[in-house]
Amino acid sequence: MTAGQSAWREKLRALVEHPRSQRIIMTLIVINAVVLGLETSATAREAAGELLRVLDSLILAVFVLELGAKILVHGRRFVRDPWNIFDFLVVAVALVPATGNLSVLRALRVLRVMRLVSGIPSMRRVVGALLSAIPGMGSIVALLALVYYVFAVIATRLYGASFPEWFGTIGASSYSLFQIMTLESWSMGIVRPVMETYPIAWLFFVPFIMLTSFTVLNLFIGIIVDAMQSQHQSEVEAEREQAHADAEAILAELRSLRQEVTEMRQERRSEDQGQ
Amino acid sequence: MTAGQSAWREKLRALVEHPRSQRIIMTLIVINAVVLGLETSATAREAAGELLRVLDSLILAVFVLELGAKILVHGRRFVRDPWNIFDFLVVAVALVPATGNLSVLRALRVLRVMRLVSGIPSMRRVVGALLSAIPGMGSIVALLALVYYVFAVIATRLYGASFPEWFGTIGASSYSLFQIMTLESWSMGIVRPVMETYPIAWLFFVPFIMLTSFTVLNLFIGIIVDAMQSQHQSEVEAEREQAHADAEAILAELRSLRQEVTEMRQERRSEDQGQ
Amino acid sequence: MTAGQSAWREKLRALVEHPRSQRIIMTLIVINAVVLGLETSATAREAAGELLRVLDSLILAVFVLELGAKILVHGRRFVRDPWNIFDFLVVAVALVPATGNLSVLRALRVLRVMRLVSGIPSMRRVVGALLSAIPGMGSIVALLALVYYVFAVIATRLYGASFPEWFGTIGASSYSLFQIMTLESWSMGIVRPVMETYPIAWLFFVPFIMLTSFTVLNLFIGIIVDAMQSQHQSEVEAEREQAHADAEAILAELRSLRQEVTEMRQERRSEDQGQ
Amino acid sequence: MTAGQSAWREKLRALVEHPRSQRIIMTLIVINAVVLGLETSATAREAAGELLRVLDSLILAVFVLELGAKILVHGRRFVRDPWNIFDFLVVAVALVPATGNLSVLRALRVLRVMRLVSGIPSMRRVVGALLSAIPGMGSIVALLALVYYVFAVIATRLYGASFPEWFGTIGASSYSLFQIMTLESWSMGIVRPVMETYPIAWLFFVPFIMLTSFTVLNLFIGIIVDAMQSQHQSEVEAEREQAHADAEAILAELRSLRQEVTEMRQERRSEDQGQ
Repeated sequence: MTAGQSAWREKLRALVEHPRSQRIIMTLIVINAVVLGLETSATAREAAGELLRVLDSLILAVFVLELGAKILVHGRRFVRDPWNIFDFLVVAVALVPATGNLSVLRALRVLRVMRLVSGIPSMRRVVGALLSAIPGMGSIVALLALVYYVFAVIATRLYGASFPEWFGTIGASSYSLFQIMTLESWSMGIVRPVMETYPIAWLFFVPFIMLTSFTVLNLFIGIIVDAMQSQHQSEVEAEREQAHADAEAILAELRSLRQEVTEMRQERRSEDQGQ
Repeated sequence: MTAGQSAWREKLRALVEHPRSQRIIMTLIVINAVVLGLETSATAREAAGELLRVLDSLILAVFVLELGAKILVHGRRFVRDPWNIFDFLVVAVALVPATGNLSVLRALRVLRVMRLVSGIPSMRRVVGALLSAIPGMGSIVALLALVYYVFAVIATRLYGASFPEWFGTIGASSYSLFQIMTLESWSMGIVRPVMETYPIAWLFFVPFIMLTSFTVLNLFIGIIVDAMQSQHQSEVEAEREQAHADAEAILAELRSLRQEVTEMRQERRSEDQGQ
Repeated sequence: MTAGQSAWREKLRALVEHPRSQRIIMTLIVINAVVLGLETSATAREAAGELLRVLDSLILAVFVLELGAKILVHGRRFVRDPWNIFDFLVVAVALVPATGNLSVLRALRVLRVMRLVSGIPSMRRVVGALLSAIPGMGSIVALLALVYYVFAVIATRLYGASFPEWFGTIGASSYSLFQIMTLESWSMGIVRPVMETYPIAWLFFVPFIMLTSFTVLNLFIGIIVDAMQSQHQSEVEAEREQAHADAEAILAELRSLRQEVTEMRQERRSEDQGQ
Repeated sequence: MTAGQSAWREKLRALVEHPRSQRIIMTLIVINAVVLGLETSATAREAAGELLRVLDSLILAVFVLELGAKILVHGRRFVRDPWNIFDFLVVAVALVPATGNLSVLRALRVLRVMRLVSGIPSMRRVVGALLSAIPGMGSIVALLALVYYVFAVIATRLYGASFPEWFGTIGASSYSLFQIMTLESWSMGIVRPVMETYPIAWLFFVPFIMLTSFTVLNLFIGIIVDAMQSQHQSEVEAEREQAHADAEAILAELRSLRQEVTEMRQERRSEDQGQ
């Protein structure tokens, strides 16, 4: 890399990371959010549909330029920050030709608004805190998934023939069991009708509700205890350090006192021998 | 301000702040609550409608006089206490001519009953404690609002055309998503009908439920942890202070002991030199 | 009271408080629970209705005798134990002639089964623990009741005319608001129909849901924090006591050391003077 | 037992407990899970029904052999590990001839998949942690069961005649009360219809909801407090031990200092006497 390239890159970095550029990008995101919101309104589309489309394209262009500049500046390190990948994906969604089966992607363009999260440090911290709770949930979520699979297979076999809409396939059963776990219309909507055909169906559904509620509750308790403990630990450590520092101060004082006494004793002895 | 004015103001303050005046105001608020309650009953209105209206007006007049006196007494400082502004607003609501579009304001006159909260110290503390939990919720609530906006825009674009009642506008979508977040009829009432038209709609709604439940849960955990920690901190601090005081006492004792030994040693030396 | 009376009373007390009597009473309560349960079954009533009624009356007679004996033994102190009053009431319910309007009382006879709680110490402790959480909830429950009243009056005034079944009276409004607070069919069942007449009704109900959820949540957090703190306090106190005892031991050791040094110094001085 | 038998048994144990055997069993469980899942799909059954059945039988045969080997190896100790009994039961379910009334057992064959839990140590720990929360819930669950029974009997007596589907028997009442406790359609679905016949029915159901919510909440709080405390205790103990070790170090230092002073004093005395 020549010196000229490096200097040019440095200038670009200074431009991209300048607080004013950041503020402009944040402002554009908010404007973009409003534009995308207005595009859902028929009235706004009629009044200024063309303007909204142009604004959206302009802002998208700025985002693409900004991301391009960032990739140029950071090179390979760009992909190391997960927030950069997040920014890249939510911008890239808008560039995919949204036709045919992919027309749903047009609706996802509003995900770009989530760049506000990656742009505001306090938001990044909140999301970071939320994500940090996930690894600790790993094994209990795996257990829940297993329980789900087992219950979904059983429900499909037992009730699939009579209630194909709810339990026809493992997918349908999983969805119905998720609904039952959220307690939405579980009895009036699902279990009572099922019990008209299979009177002891409650023996399947009531334990399922208790089991999943208890497991999800323990999942939550785990998160609470972890959150509390990490906050608590630092406190306790501070206290422990102070107590230990106090003890060290006392011990130091004691040791120099003992030193003094020992010296005095030796002075006496040497005197006595001198006498 | 002349001395006469000041003396007159002092007398007014003594009257307004006298415990008996406070008790009378509290009693009037309770009577007013009953009166406003009775006014909703057709039977009571027929039996004593005129009396109820007169009572309400009289009590309102007393409240207006009391607030006027408070404003006279406190001057500008009146607006510094948010509870005063609260009292002012809930009384002022009743004075707005409640006709035409504003007739809804008549119904809000009962807000006056909330003055019980501003009048009873233990109630003020509870409300203060509730409000104190809000600032810590700031960034997570902002995140939730952003997620809401994004999902509302996507829902409006994807399902607005087919289900205008639920997802026709961003406002309608926000309301429906709030309903879904509270898990009320989310599946039987909304998502199953939507899935009849868009079979993969669950890919939108189930993650939404999980995401918002998880975020709201973390919001709550944050409040719990904060509440616990602030209570805990004072405890730990008391403990730490005692431990430190103990350590200080020991160190003081040690230092005077060392002083004693040092003095003894110097006495010996000066003696030895004297010998 | 003569000595004969007293001796007779002592014998009765020994009988009533004998572990075997307690066990018999407990067994009778369980049998009574089964009898009262069987009485709800038409099949069981046909097969052995007379037997069930006789059994119930016999067991009731034993309970009345037992309570009578307890009252004789304890005299006025009987009413000091709230559990005794509880026992008295649930037995007394069965003695009220259950005819006409009071026929509902026949159904309450099964409350007698709750005597199992007053008879088993671990159950008494659990109930005691549950009840002990209530006083701390006082002011927040009062606040909730106030908020409820205000919203009920407003709902009755605003929506009572159009939806008399749900909001016709303050009582009906309170019940509907309780249902809304529990999130049961709040939107599909109540608020959406109301919004067809009053499109901005969500401005009343959504804040109500948020306000009451937040308040109830804080009520729960208060209970959790209290429960945790009382458990925590004893721990911390034990720790603090140990730390303080340690510090006291060190100080005692230090003081006797200083005493020793002081004595040595004085010995030297008196020697020096003696020299 | 001859030496030959013992050696043969040792070889079998080495084979059964070999990590590779464990991995094979785990893989077979996952394959079995997929097979049992596919068997619920009509398409898959048509395409490869015979293959699926053969695969299932083969895997079942391996499981039976594995369990038989384990029983041979461990002898009576086999039943001491509850996980072994769990493995035995979920495999045994598949061997019961599933005809007539027992055809439901065919659906339970998928329970075999739960062997993944007994096979993966981290899963065993999670389940162990979940189960460890249960004993502490004992008395409060007993209380809840008692309250349930009492309310079910009362509901059956009061509303059984008019609403046989919901409250016709104690069983039906218990199910309906469970539904009401989960707040599913409690008001629109059950209590409002009941209130049309018995206008004061809310006096029965609203207290029931409050009582059970409060009790279940306290059950949860108990679990949270226990979980937090056990985690906390170890922390506090570590802190306490360090503080105590510090204090012991100081005391030791102090004692040897005192020893030194005492010796010096005695040296002086013996010298003085020697002079």
